[in-house]
Amino acid sequence: MSVYSPRLRELVEGLRRLPGVGAKTAQRMALHLLQRDRDGARQLADALQRAVDGVGHCPECGLLTEEERCGLCASPQRRRTLLCVVESSADVFALEQATDFQGLYFVLGGALSPLDGIGPEELGLDRLQQRLEAGEVEEIILATNPTIEGEATAHYVQSLAAERGVRTTRIAHGVPMGGALEQVDQGTLSHAFMGRRDYEG
Amino acid sequence: MSVYSPRLRELVEGLRRLPGVGAKTAQRMALHLLQRDRDGARQLADALQRAVDGVGHCPECGLLTEEERCGLCASPQRRRTLLCVVESSADVFALEQATDFQGLYFVLGGALSPLDGIGPEELGLDRLQQRLEAGEVEEIILATNPTIEGEATAHYVQSLAAERGVRTTRIAHGVPMGGALEQVDQGTLSHAFMGRRDYEG
Ligand SMILES: [Zn+2]
Ligand SMILES: [Zn+2]
Repeated sequence: MSVYSPRLRELVEGLRRLPGVGAKTAQRMALHLLQRDRDGARQLADALQRAVDGVGHCPECGLLTEEERCGLCASPQRRRTLLCVVESSADVFALEQATDFQGLYFVLGGALSPLDGIGPEELGLDRLQQRLEAGEVEEIILATNPTIEGEATAHYVQSLAAERGVRTTRIAHGVPMGGALEQVDQGTLSHAFMGRRDYEG
Repeated sequence: MSVYSPRLRELVEGLRRLPGVGAKTAQRMALHLLQRDRDGARQLADALQRAVDGVGHCPECGLLTEEERCGLCASPQRRRTLLCVVESSADVFALEQATDFQGLYFVLGGALSPLDGIGPEELGLDRLQQRLEAGEVEEIILATNPTIEGEATAHYVQSLAAERGVRTTRIAHGVPMGGALEQVDQGTLSHAFMGRRDYEG
């Protein structure tokens, strides 16, 4: 017999759906909410429901949003000539927090992976092609992940851009700032070494 | 301007109400749910709503439950002569997982703390007194936390029990002073439970 009542068990199981939350953490969360923060629990329930019901993807860039166009695509301040191609919405949030990039994004929602049935159409690359044909974009910044799939996707986008004579750049990969050389994996270190630049000091 | 859409921001804020969840973790959770597990998000929203609406306290022992009596109090298998007094429902779950205790519990919902306005009535100790007067209980096991408030509460309950001539024991071995019962590992907790001693107050 479980000591949890059915609804408490349901709640613990629901919380375990969250990434990184195991049985013990889920129990602690459930008890915290029920014993000390029922308003928080109600607020979270509403927020989840509203997000699941409403949040889709920006039809222009693919960013998660419930609005007709996301805040970035709708902003008159952003430069529409620069287009940064990323795999996921999380990458957009990370870049917005870390950089002062003033252009727009194109969120693929993944990377090319033929064996998993993820081809150019699944990533909306036909829409990207149309956008390049429209002629507004002057530079594509490739910020897909430095994985086999991310590199293959970067190559594919580069070829689309080349067809239209659009300049393509790739964000730099190498030893992370503040990182110790000896702790960086071999692939990264090799890539950083090959990609060395002139240094004026 | 935030890059989060309003509903995404609400969701991230809702998730931050969970204990131990900061801004970065909340964002990771929100994106995971929206991008990869919308069923999980719906399930969690429902579970939260149902738990908040339905889960209260067992009128007999104070354990969190939405049922008329909790599963423990309702069970014909439990020995009604043994009553283990704990501060919270979390302690019941911890003891049930760690020990083979076959008695019942009495969940105080806290510990005596006069400065915070928490006296015997706030903890339902008048109900405990009535229960002792009913004469069914033969042993009270004090499993309040080894904190100043928990010890004061143990003393108080011991005096109630002594008035009725009911034997009182206190779990003691291995529980670190100043520690919270629910955070103790199962082995230590089991040991402490087995090694309980007569308690004179
Ligand atoms: Zn957009
Ligand atoms: Zn009960």
